[in-house]
Amino acid sequence: MKIGFIGVGIMGAPMARHVQAAGHDLFLVRNRSPLPDALIAGGATVCATAGDVARQAELIILMLPDTPDVDHVLFGADGVASGLTPDKTVIDMSSIDPIETKRFGEKIAGLGCYYADAPVSGGDVGARNASLTIMVGADEEVFARIHPLLACMGKNITLIGPVGSGQIAKVANQIIVALNIEAVSEALVFASKAGADPAKVRAALMGGFASSRILEVHGERMIERNFAPGFRIRLHQKDLSLALGSARALGLALPNTAVAQQLFSACVAQGDGDCDHSAMVTAIEQLANHRLGPTD
Amino acid sequence: MKIGFIGVGIMGAPMARHVQAAGHDLFLVRNRSPLPDALIAGGATVCATAGDVARQAELIILMLPDTPDVDHVLFGADGVASGLTPDKTVIDMSSIDPIETKRFGEKIAGLGCYYADAPVSGGDVGARNASLTIMVGADEEVFARIHPLLACMGKNITLIGPVGSGQIAKVANQIIVALNIEAVSEALVFASKAGADPAKVRAALMGGFASSRILEVHGERMIERNFAPGFRIRLHQKDLSLALGSARALGLALPNTAVAQQLFSACVAQGDGDCDHSAMVTAIEQLANHRLGPTD
Repeated sequence: MKIGFIGVGIMGAPMARHVQAAGHDLFLVRNRSPLPDALIAGGATVCATAGDVARQAELIILMLPDTPDVDHVLFGADGVASGLTPDKTVIDMSSIDPIETKRFGEKIAGLGCYYADAPVSGGDVGARNASLTIMVGADEEVFARIHPLLACMGKNITLIGPVGSGQIAKVANQIIVALNIEAVSEALVFASKAGADPAKVRAALMGGFASSRILEVHGERMIERNFAPGFRIRLHQKDLSLALGSARALGLALPNTAVAQQLFSACVAQGDGDCDHSAMVTAIEQLANHRLGPTD
Repeated sequence: MKIGFIGVGIMGAPMARHVQAAGHDLFLVRNRSPLPDALIAGGATVCATAGDVARQAELIILMLPDTPDVDHVLFGADGVASGLTPDKTVIDMSSIDPIETKRFGEKIAGLGCYYADAPVSGGDVGARNASLTIMVGADEEVFARIHPLLACMGKNITLIGPVGSGQIAKVANQIIVALNIEAVSEALVFASKAGADPAKVRAALMGGFASSRILEVHGERMIERNFAPGFRIRLHQKDLSLALGSARALGLALPNTAVAQQLFSACVAQGDGDCDHSAMVTAIEQLANHRLGPTD
């Protein structure tokens, strides 16, 4: 199948490589920065514009940083929309605004084409290992048709509901992950400042109702002061901005998500925007004037 | 062994029964409300005061509602302290203030006796099944000595550190549980109001970094509107008060714990203080003017 892949960065490059390795013909768009050697060596065709990609490919995948990027690549000058003809399919695998996603889907449907949002979790490790979790918003027939292609890139692939639902699930995921990190931060800094060994507290809590992947993985990172990403604070901050922006548009309040966003901002202010999101604990430590782990 | 057991309510009664079933002689204190038939039938001795219990027993277990109750039973008129002689042991299994616990431990040590704090998690089901998680603050030799007795009542028994550490771990546990419930509440209400099926979102998130015992158990209760306790909001509110009181005394900030406490207060205001703590979702629903599940 002729597949366009726009956005071949840290996530997109290995995802595109898995698609190519499955036997599909790749169409990329020329970029200011060089395109990944592996994709070129694998026989990818380089097009001048996103519109050209859409003209040549039957299905176009996007993996871009944020909502305005997707908007620009789809509907800007020489964008994907300018090259679409009826019955082609667009899959947006970026993590972007759920409400804007519905609008994008309607505009693409208006051209006689199909749209699915399919954001992922699992990070660059998941992208390299083709083990991403993929949350899909699409019509059932579109989901059935694109499932084999998504299965080249991920393992846990779920149809949540109609277009936009994948992005909604991804935002919900990022809310829980951020707030569970915040919860473990408050609990371990409390325990440490009160005089207990946070490692022993973490171990004692692992078997009960406080147990979570975050207590297991990120709790350990906090104690060991291992803040190499992982998932960068800067990116999680973007995801919480999506959550808070959508919440405002929908008319609902997310009090602790708002606090977590501010704590990420405090981390960025300290120069830690490129640390793993478990470094949120350092913002709670500053509020406590107390360090959980040993001094560097 | 002669064991005093003070506080034979919903938790304490089955715990005391397990101790008695293991062959120990129980000493209880007369109460306004009748003492559990099973304990009396099992041969427990009923004493007039807590001081009398301490005079007759070698080891005294407390399982009381809150810090002032423990203070009163230990150090009030005819309290435990009035009946202690050197080398006896006091184990406080209540969930109370960690800082006050250190003070209580020092006063008991000043009488030539031993003190351990050993709060539990696992609720009345864990108490009945002798499967409680027990977090212990004690000297190592005291821990070794009381371990067989605690093993009559629980399974996952951890020495966290010196006296007070058990209560610190319990507070940390209650912080994480409350904040994970809050996180799942925000995420599911967001997803539902944005138009996705919260049950599908929960299922999609269970395999990834958002996974937790709370998403599994309490997320399902929120979706199914099953708010029968479980663990009552009123009790969790007390535990967060302990966390915030200790935090103020220690000089540290717990921003999301403070918000969660307010959300529990909103639930109590609605008359839901005796609902399961998963009903915190109803406070987030009120903030969103949107109900997650079907109307009753």
